[in-house]
Order: sequence, then structure tokens, then C-alpha cells
Amino acid sequence: MKHTIQALVENKFGVLARIASLFSARGYNIESLAVGETNDPTMSCMTIVVDAPDERILEQIKKQLHKLIDVVTVEDFTRKDYISRDLILAKVSIAGAAQAVVDKLIKDYAVRVIEKKKDYWFLEICVDHHQEEEILARLKKAGIQKLVRTGRIAVSK
Amino acid sequence: MKHTIQALVENKFGVLARIASLFSARGYNIESLAVGETNDPTMSCMTIVVDAPDERILEQIKKQLHKLIDVVTVEDFTRKDYISRDLILAKVSIAGAAQAVVDKLIKDYAVRVIEKKKDYWFLEICVDHHQEEEILARLKKAGIQKLVRTGRIAVSK
Repeated sequence: MKHTIQALVENKFGVLARIASLFSARGYNIESLAVGETNDPTMSCMTIVVDAPDERILEQIKKQLHKLIDVVTVEDFTRKDYISRDLILAKVSIAGAAQAVVDKLIKDYAVRVIEKKKDYWFLEICVDHHQEEEILARLKKAGIQKLVRTGRIAVSK
Repeated sequence: MKHTIQALVENKFGVLARIASLFSARGYNIESLAVGETNDPTMSCMTIVVDAPDERILEQIKKQLHKLIDVVTVEDFTRKDYISRDLILAKVSIAGAAQAVVDKLIKDYAVRVIEKKKDYWFLEICVDHHQEEEILARLKKAGIQKLVRTGRIAVSK
């Protein structure tokens, strides 16, 4: 099962390496990670998406996270009511039939066109995790030349 | 000087911990980090923003990144033409005078209202790094109850 975990940490060097090691030491791959400053520049917020086949091991990891001196809070959003978003920047083909696919995508979802070139467009897309598969499938259909994602962030309601 | 560095890496556990360690071993704090899958699920893309007072040390770090077996490419966007975005999710007060500040923010920038409650709204904001200071200042003026950021992602033009 996929878990979305958020840790509020002190903005010091080394914290990220220690947190990443906690997961990798147990063979857990971090699927996505977003680390950014909060409104307090001394603190950073990390949102981690991890596939945890064994929830007991994940509980251990969360306990160890709590114990790290630079970690202030740890929250697991799983089974909670929360809002999540992921940002995609994509350079997508609009040649031939791709144009119609891209036009439909813009109509159906929260897509902004950043820049238009003759054969490709740069798109900015905010996705909820329920929409991501459908959006990625449509981008692939049009033809992806480049695609970068932020990884998921979340706020509890 | 702040550098935006992007690495295409194999989606394996342990890669993130090794990369984070390269920076922290030299006392370099990663200011923001975004790691997400690419359109190829076996590959992840990491976008790292780091303040590098000594460019020679950063060059060494980049060389070491290249040498890591799971790292496919490393690109430094500094002094290049690129598009960058950062996503903010914020729970912001709309009580009293805050309402006008939030209304103006929505008018001026790429802000979407995700959910409206009596005293606060959930906002989704995509920012270019030139806009981030101004947007954060306005959010603070309204009153931030929660704020989470993805960290910067970028695509070269």
C-alpha cells in the first residue's frame, strides 16, 4: 500500500541524507519526494510517497524518523482526509494528431500552456493523485519529449 | 550563487541517500529537492536547488554525481535558458482584511482555490522562481495556517 508521509524538519545539511538512509536501509524505495522551505525559512517540509508492503516495517521507520534530532513532526496521511497535488512540466508534441490530444487535455484538466513552439508546447499541469494515470496516458499518446515531476505534496484538511 | 541541478537516475532504492550524502559530506545544504518518476517508470528525475558559495566544490560534486552507477545524466541549468516551476499548497486565512489580500493574489497570479471554508481557503499556486518572494510575502500578509511546497522543477528550452 502506498503511504504519503510528511515530516517537518530543521533546515540543516545532512537531514535529508539521514532520512533517505532510514528508508533505503530497509530496502524501501522512496517513490516520490518533495522537499521545500516552509513559511519559516529555518524549517523544511518533506513529503514522501513510499510503497510499504509491510506496514510494521513502515511503523518502525516512522518511529525512527521521530527520533532524529532534526525532525520536528511526522504525519502519515494514509486513511486521513487530505488534499494532494503533484506538478508536471512537460514538453509535448503537437504535430499531426497530437494537437487534438493536447487540446482535449487542456479542456479536461488543470493544464496551462507555458510556451508554444511550432512542433511542441511546454505544459504545466497540476494533478491530484487520482488523475495522474489518466493525464500521463494522454501525454504519452500525444508524444512526450520531456517530462519532469515534483513528486506529491499534501496538506491535511 | 544558487544552482538548479537535474539528475536522471535509475529508480532504485539507495540512490537518493547516496546523492544526498554527496552534498552533505561537503557541508552543502540542499535548499529544495523534487524527485518524481519520469514517463519511464524505471527512471526518476531529481531537481536539486543548492546554494554553492564555491563553484569549484560544486563542480566536484557534479563529477561525483556522474560517477554514481545509477545516475544517467546530470545537467546544471545555471546560465541556461529554462522554464522552472514550484508548487505551493496553502491553507490561508480569509478573515477580515485577509480576504482582500487573497482576492488580489488570485487576480495577479496563477492561483486556484481548491476548497473554501468559512475562515480559510485552500489554495494551489504554481510559481516561477522570480515570483516566489512576492507571492510568499502576500500569503504571509493574509495569514498562513499551513504551507507546503514541492521544491523547484525545471525543463530546458
